[in-house]
Amino acid sequence: MSVSKTERVSIELADRSYDILIGAGVLDAPDSYEGLPRAADALVVTNTTVARLYAARLVRALTARYRRVHVVELPDGELHKDWVTLNLIFDALLSHGCDRKTVLFALGGGVVGDMTGFAAASYMRGVPFVQVPTTLLAQVDSSVGGKTAINHPMGKNMIGAFYQPARVIADLQTLSTLPRREVAAGLAEVIKYGPIADDEFFRWIEAHVDQLLALDPAALAHAVKRSCEIKADVVGQDEREAGLRAILNFGHTFGHAIESGLGYGQWLHGEAVGCGMMMAAELSRRLGLIDAAYVQRLRALVERCGLPVRGPVLGADRYLELMRLDKKSEGGEIRFVVIESPGRAGVRAVPDALVREVLADTCG
Amino acid sequence: MSVSKTERVSIELADRSYDILIGAGVLDAPDSYEGLPRAADALVVTNTTVARLYAARLVRALTARYRRVHVVELPDGELHKDWVTLNLIFDALLSHGCDRKTVLFALGGGVVGDMTGFAAASYMRGVPFVQVPTTLLAQVDSSVGGKTAINHPMGKNMIGAFYQPARVIADLQTLSTLPRREVAAGLAEVIKYGPIADDEFFRWIEAHVDQLLALDPAALAHAVKRSCEIKADVVGQDEREAGLRAILNFGHTFGHAIESGLGYGQWLHGEAVGCGMMMAAELSRRLGLIDAAYVQRLRALVERCGLPVRGPVLGADRYLELMRLDKKSEGGEIRFVVIESPGRAGVRAVPDALVREVLADTCG
Repeated sequence: MSVSKTERVSIELADRSYDILIGAGVLDAPDSYEGLPRAADALVVTNTTVARLYAARLVRALTARYRRVHVVELPDGELHKDWVTLNLIFDALLSHGCDRKTVLFALGGGVVGDMTGFAAASYMRGVPFVQVPTTLLAQVDSSVGGKTAINHPMGKNMIGAFYQPARVIADLQTLSTLPRREVAAGLAEVIKYGPIADDEFFRWIEAHVDQLLALDPAALAHAVKRSCEIKADVVGQDEREAGLRAILNFGHTFGHAIESGLGYGQWLHGEAVGCGMMMAAELSRRLGLIDAAYVQRLRALVERCGLPVRGPVLGADRYLELMRLDKKSEGGEIRFVVIESPGRAGVRAVPDALVREVLADTCG
Repeated sequence: MSVSKTERVSIELADRSYDILIGAGVLDAPDSYEGLPRAADALVVTNTTVARLYAARLVRALTARYRRVHVVELPDGELHKDWVTLNLIFDALLSHGCDRKTVLFALGGGVVGDMTGFAAASYMRGVPFVQVPTTLLAQVDSSVGGKTAINHPMGKNMIGAFYQPARVIADLQTLSTLPRREVAAGLAEVIKYGPIADDEFFRWIEAHVDQLLALDPAALAHAVKRSCEIKADVVGQDEREAGLRAILNFGHTFGHAIESGLGYGQWLHGEAVGCGMMMAAELSRRLGLIDAAYVQRLRALVERCGLPVRGPVLGADRYLELMRLDKKSEGGEIRFVVIESPGRAGVRAVPDALVREVLADTCG
């Protein structure tokens, strides 16, 4: 495995197909931007933390292609993934007189990517955008697949659009500035792909978790590429989550309830997902789908990453209430992603009583 | 011409195709709702004015098909076509625990339709919606074609989506409660179709304008049907306004500047469009495309409807500044819809100097 070369993963979605470029230094490489839509203006959307680190480099790379390159800095954090912050993007676009060919660039993590994508979907009813993810979580998950959204006080990602980027440019070097806690949170989404889609990848992660935590370039390159390949495959089959795509939400039904119940920003999204995966695995075990040994292997991996394996005590009623608001629930029935067997996931409705048992077992 | 039978106009957009039902009493007819998506919940979005008149009837019609039918009333008027009001729809959906199969029904005029459509496009990344337009303007124009949006303080319809309804149910009886001023505003959009697409229809309108103003059922039925047919044809060829569809904005570049310059809600949208058509016609004449006699015929028709034919004095600089923010402008160049010849429109960039002449001639 070499990290000097740029890996390319394609998402096949007819006229909405696009490439994910993965490599060290792709942020600065002029090649990375070739073939993107032409426009007079580009707007880089980032946050106050990432701006200091990478905005100047991205602006420099874009200046060759766009006459005017504007930058808007959003406040950092999931807490700000709301309409007020989204409106800062519209204000910037309109105050610069940006027309409907303007290309948006999302430079940052999942929050920046989700908000920039929704702004691009909505500005003048749709302008192109490019994802430039700078966190592990965004590189392996949120920047790929076209889910964009903001939060509503009553639920996470409740307002948004399916809107595909024109490209994803994932520079592995940006992970070197990532706080340790965010690396761990990103690894939750990497681990996720094992139980739901690829048992061999799960074993590879078990064997390389130390290298991943140490940000070993070769290990990171493989983890990001394989994660994107799996996601590309699933999204290519089911762009708008009519069925299969829901498996990518493994751990997320419990996880969203944790994030929402504690208040956004208390736990990182990846932390809530890590813990949520343990809950979903325990649910799968109680359904007789997987054995305790497999749950234990998953727990060891999640723990090794420093992610929480036990949920906060919100009370089972509150968990159930929050999960009933989940976008996967239908007619008041909560639908959980479960592990059908190692490397294969499914979606099932489950009796409340069983969920209560799982919560009693995995919280506090 | 008979109004007792329901007319059906189809919009052909592959898997997003849908029907427009036009007739007296279609609001109450069970047939009107057959084949719509199934769901546990339906949400009727309306405004405080229309709710008193028609909400109970729509709820009754929907109760046969949906287990729970909720209603949310928005404040009435273009002034409220903003994020704060849009959020009332999301609040209602979430507080009722509505899932992503929920069907939204837009009962009202263009403002209710545009906001409900954008809410449907964005709630949980997309739920189905049905247009039930109760104003002439909405029946002949805004409810058809899938343009949804809210306003931004810096520009009209700047934030939105192309999102097609599952059906349009246009009950001609609802026009009987429409204030005279709104009938006139709706006729502006009816008249529009003549110069841009159908000279024979233009002559028909000239011959029937008195019947239309008197809300003669047969005349209304023909006007609404022919307007929808023309719009369906244009939208079917160019759903996302890559080219042809822009002709439907005849009079709207000037009109939006008037609305925005005066402050939303001062002039009705149709009034601004009526006046904007006169400006665009004068521009077309100065470009040598049409003669003064045709401009005079258009003026006579617009005036007969009681619509303004002269624009407010905002100053040419302000008009140009506002029009440069129009969604059709590209790279700072304003693109005007002009009449190429009676019944045929095109889009052209025009020197500022010529626009100033037109404004000097048509304002104040």
